[in-house]
Amino acid sequence: MTGWLVIAGLGPGSDAMVTPEVTQALAEASDVIGYIPYVARIAPRPGLTLHPTDNRVEMDRARHALALAAGGARVVVVSSGDPGVFAMASAIFEAVEAGDPQWRALDIRVLPGITAMLAAAARAGAPLGHDFCTINLSDNLKPWAVIEQRLRLAVGADFAMAFYNPRSASRPEGFARTLELLQQACNDARPVIFARAVSTSEEVLTVVPLPEARPEMADMRTMVIVGSSRTRMIARDGVPFVYTPRSIPK
Amino acid sequence: MTGWLVIAGLGPGSDAMVTPEVTQALAEASDVIGYIPYVARIAPRPGLTLHPTDNRVEMDRARHALALAAGGARVVVVSSGDPGVFAMASAIFEAVEAGDPQWRALDIRVLPGITAMLAAAARAGAPLGHDFCTINLSDNLKPWAVIEQRLRLAVGADFAMAFYNPRSASRPEGFARTLELLQQACNDARPVIFARAVSTSEEVLTVVPLPEARPEMADMRTMVIVGSSRTRMIARDGVPFVYTPRSIPK
Repeated sequence: MTGWLVIAGLGPGSDAMVTPEVTQALAEASDVIGYIPYVARIAPRPGLTLHPTDNRVEMDRARHALALAAGGARVVVVSSGDPGVFAMASAIFEAVEAGDPQWRALDIRVLPGITAMLAAAARAGAPLGHDFCTINLSDNLKPWAVIEQRLRLAVGADFAMAFYNPRSASRPEGFARTLELLQQACNDARPVIFARAVSTSEEVLTVVPLPEARPEMADMRTMVIVGSSRTRMIARDGVPFVYTPRSIPK
Repeated sequence: MTGWLVIAGLGPGSDAMVTPEVTQALAEASDVIGYIPYVARIAPRPGLTLHPTDNRVEMDRARHALALAAGGARVVVVSSGDPGVFAMASAIFEAVEAGDPQWRALDIRVLPGITAMLAAAARAGAPLGHDFCTINLSDNLKPWAVIEQRLRLAVGADFAMAFYNPRSASRPEGFARTLELLQQACNDARPVIFARAVSTSEEVLTVVPLPEARPEMADMRTMVIVGSSRTRMIARDGVPFVYTPRSIPK
C-alpha cells in the first residue's frame, strides 16, 4: 500500500458542514494528526491511530505527518475550517520545501473546508458579497506594523474585512488598537459582526455599528467581520441581517 | 406548514464537496431556484419544483424566491461555490430590504459552501495561507476605476489576491489590463495560478510566474490566484506546489 497525505478541513464545528470527501478520507486513514480539539472530533476505530498534539508545534506536526506518509501510512492532517486559511496546509508545504527532496513526490492533497469567515458571514447574511480582504490579527507570526498598514490600505480600498484570531488572552491589546484605528479611519457606522463558535452549541452572533464595537466583544473563538462603507443592516426582530450590495453605481 | 428560504452553496462542482446540511435542505425543499446550470445539478423528484432561470436576472429570482417562501413554500436558492461570495445571498438581502416588510420576518438561512477560491487554492497547495484579498474582476456591477484602485492598494498591502470572473467573452480587456497593472506594480516573478473548472472532469491547473501570465490563460470558468511577494513555488514533477508562508520575520 502506498502512503498518502491529505490535509483536510473539518469546517467550523458542526458535522453537518464536513464535506463528503473529507469524511471519506477519514474513513480510509491509518493516522489522523492535528491540534488536540480537532483530533477530538474524530471517532476512534480499529486500525486508526490518533495523534493529538498541542498548539504552536505546527512544523513538528507537519514533518511527522510527511514522515509517516513517506513510510506508507495513509495520513489525514485535520484543521478546523479550511486547511488553507491560517491553518495547517502552509505549514505542511513549508516542511516539504525545507525537507527530504523525496517528499515532493508524495501524494499530497488538500481538501477544502468551510472556513470560519464564510460560516460567520452566512449566519449574519451576506457581508462578504462584494470585494473583501482576510487578515490574521495575531502578531505571533508577523510584525504589528504590517497588520496596521494592511488595515489602513484595506480601508482605502473600501474592502469588507474578515479578521481571524482577533484577540488572544495573552495579547488583547492588538484588537483594541485595530478597533481604534478603524473607528478613526472609517469614521462611520458600518456594521461589525462578532460571530463566536459558529455552528456549535455555544454560538453567539452580535452585530453593532462600528462606533459601538468594543475589544471585549471578541475572544479567540470569535470571527470578526467589518463591513465596507456600503454594507447595510436590515433591522428586524432579533439580530439584523447584514449584507454588502453586489454593485457600486457607475 | 410554514415556509422558509435557504440560500445554499453547492461548491465548485463535485458532489463530494456539497455539505450534508445543504443536501438535507434540498431533500426537504418544495422548490429549487437558480441559474440554469446550478439547478441542473439537482435531481428531480416528486414534490419538488425546479425553477431554472437565466443569468443576470438575480433580482427577479430573489423576489420570486421570497414570494414563494412567504406563501408557505420550502425554497432553496442554489448558488455555485458559496452563496455569500459574489453569488445569490446579497441579491436576496437586497430584495428583502427593498421589498415587503413582512419578508424580514421570514425564516431565511444561508448555508455556506466551498467557494471557488478555496477549492482552487487547495488544488495548488496553500497560496492563501497568509493575509489575502478577494476581488470580482467583472466591471458589470462597478466602475473599472474602483477595480484598478483596489488592485494597486492590494499590491501595496502585499496581499495574495483571488480573482473571480476574471475574463468574460464580451469584456476580455479588463483582465489584460489587470495583468499589465500587476506586472508593472509587482515587478517580480511571484506565482500566478489559473484553476479552471476545479473538481469537474474539465479541471485544468496551470501555474506560471507573473511575467509569463497571459490574458488568454483565463476564461469565465477560471479562478485566478496571484501570490503575495512572499508566495513560494516548490518545483517537482508536474505542476509545482504553491504556498504562502504563515510568517513574516520580525
